[in-house]
Amino acid sequence: MTNCYLGIDAGGTSTRAALVLADGTCLGLGRAGTGNPISAGPELAAQNVLAATRAALADAELGAGTLAGGIAAMAGGRVARRVDWLNGPLHEAGIGISLSLEPDLLAAFLSATPQPDGYGVVAGTGAVAVRVRGFELESVTDGLGWLLGDAGSGFWVGHQVVRAGLAALDGRAAPTTLTAALFDALEVDPAAPAEVEGRPGAIQHAVDVLYTWRPVELARLAPLAFEAATAGDATAAAIVEEAGTALRAALEAMLVEDIPGPVVFGGSVLVQQPAVAALVGAALPEQEPLLTSDGLVGAANLALRRGGVTVTEPVFDRLTETVGARR
Amino acid sequence: MTNCYLGIDAGGTSTRAALVLADGTCLGLGRAGTGNPISAGPELAAQNVLAATRAALADAELGAGTLAGGIAAMAGGRVARRVDWLNGPLHEAGIGISLSLEPDLLAAFLSATPQPDGYGVVAGTGAVAVRVRGFELESVTDGLGWLLGDAGSGFWVGHQVVRAGLAALDGRAAPTTLTAALFDALEVDPAAPAEVEGRPGAIQHAVDVLYTWRPVELARLAPLAFEAATAGDATAAAIVEEAGTALRAALEAMLVEDIPGPVVFGGSVLVQQPAVAALVGAALPEQEPLLTSDGLVGAANLALRRGGVTVTEPVFDRLTETVGARR
Repeated sequence: MTNCYLGIDAGGTSTRAALVLADGTCLGLGRAGTGNPISAGPELAAQNVLAATRAALADAELGAGTLAGGIAAMAGGRVARRVDWLNGPLHEAGIGISLSLEPDLLAAFLSATPQPDGYGVVAGTGAVAVRVRGFELESVTDGLGWLLGDAGSGFWVGHQVVRAGLAALDGRAAPTTLTAALFDALEVDPAAPAEVEGRPGAIQHAVDVLYTWRPVELARLAPLAFEAATAGDATAAAIVEEAGTALRAALEAMLVEDIPGPVVFGGSVLVQQPAVAALVGAALPEQEPLLTSDGLVGAANLALRRGGVTVTEPVFDRLTETVGARR
Repeated sequence: MTNCYLGIDAGGTSTRAALVLADGTCLGLGRAGTGNPISAGPELAAQNVLAATRAALADAELGAGTLAGGIAAMAGGRVARRVDWLNGPLHEAGIGISLSLEPDLLAAFLSATPQPDGYGVVAGTGAVAVRVRGFELESVTDGLGWLLGDAGSGFWVGHQVVRAGLAALDGRAAPTTLTAALFDALEVDPAAPAEVEGRPGAIQHAVDVLYTWRPVELARLAPLAFEAATAGDATAAAIVEEAGTALRAALEAMLVEDIPGPVVFGGSVLVQQPAVAALVGAALPEQEPLLTSDGLVGAANLALRRGGVTVTEPVFDRLTETVGARR
């Protein structure tokens, strides 16, 4: 009889499920829409976890009776600590196991390593750093959202791009290529002639466009800073360096002597921008940062751990390989 | 027969009207609710301008037939450039004159001086600098709102207070007295014991409170920085200095050689914080900044000007004195 473990990575835009054996072999993957109970509401989130689970069982050509245990990794587990909203619908649908909830940040860390201890820094739209000890989150810093924190995140960088690009055109800061790049991205003519109450028309047009965005959407403009910095723009280089310094401060806030590493980097700002990763990695010069762009391997890793399976290096490597091969 | 001029200062929270004679004597004041057509809608704004006008006429014990002309100073005149929304209701109500719209920033400048040319910097919740030439706004910088600009404003300072106070408690920045001041202001216990997923309970409590605020409300916390800076806190002093530097850059962006001054400072950050005012004023060391906390004198000044009256120093002084005396 097959003993399968179910790892769920439930995110704001999609939910993924992996069915794995104790030796790390992935037998099936499934996918559905948002699985976050905070943003989508618990009913829709539970529906999507169920749909992803069924898709994974179908992919593996297995029935629900093969499931020996499982976990669901998601943000906001704090609010959704009681899991009736999730396990009630699963049980009604004939899935006999009860999933436990795990922090998505723990799954991100455990996607890159089988180690029980270490550090994670994730910088995508937001930014957060964690310390992991014994397969549990021991400490978290930042991740406070675009208004109150997320220092060095994609939002933070995009926000600085806009402010610096507009300030330069407004005569309040030194010229920067970010101005032209910003107006190009917004499809606003920087030389727009109309003056409204003493203000260049282009600035008013850009402001009118940008205030139709939700603030977090400024993260879209972060790539302009990385491109301009690479091309030698001093303003952009200062923004990128300040982002790296802020992320490094978050990592440094997590460091303790008895945990040497490893350190896992996730999120587009760290995974796609080696210059930022180098600035942050300097906090732990002995460690080569591990990169992860995915929490699904970590969710499967956690499903095995919480099911009492020891995930050795070979098991972890097989997990990484076989999840990757089925994608 | 009395020839009166009507100056309206229409703001987001209140509308004030002043009835003045050509020699600067104020005969009556009136007050009503919001007069901003953008935030309140044109119907309500027009009603309140009418109510303030009637109150001023009643205060002066005069009929509408005595009005020789008038203006209404308000933000967002750009959007409301056509004034039918305002003059239609006034005419229907028996007010025979047609008001022209003027920028509130011009009225702020002309509240402090009878001069035709000069500079204004206003830093309250937002921040903006202007150049005035020949009783018209010639150039404007910043005033781009809390997300995209307003560098050095009350919002900007309050935002930095929150970020710095939380970052220090989060271990990402040096300790600062702003943390205790912030938690005191939020009525959150900084030593709250509960840890939620590796994060100090106090931080989560503070974040939960702050995300119920509208972002601009962070301006409320700006005083914490000024108090802590005065008491010697290094983090707060750096925030205050950066605010002053940003406002100075805005003023410097407006300077031209053929206009030596005067410079008018408005808004709580400049009027109530001498340390900030000193940093900004250093851009024009020969000029003693004039302070204004009010656009009503400027609106009356503009009503006279646009009515063809020459506002000499004695007329301006009488305006200031008699508007002040009736308040």
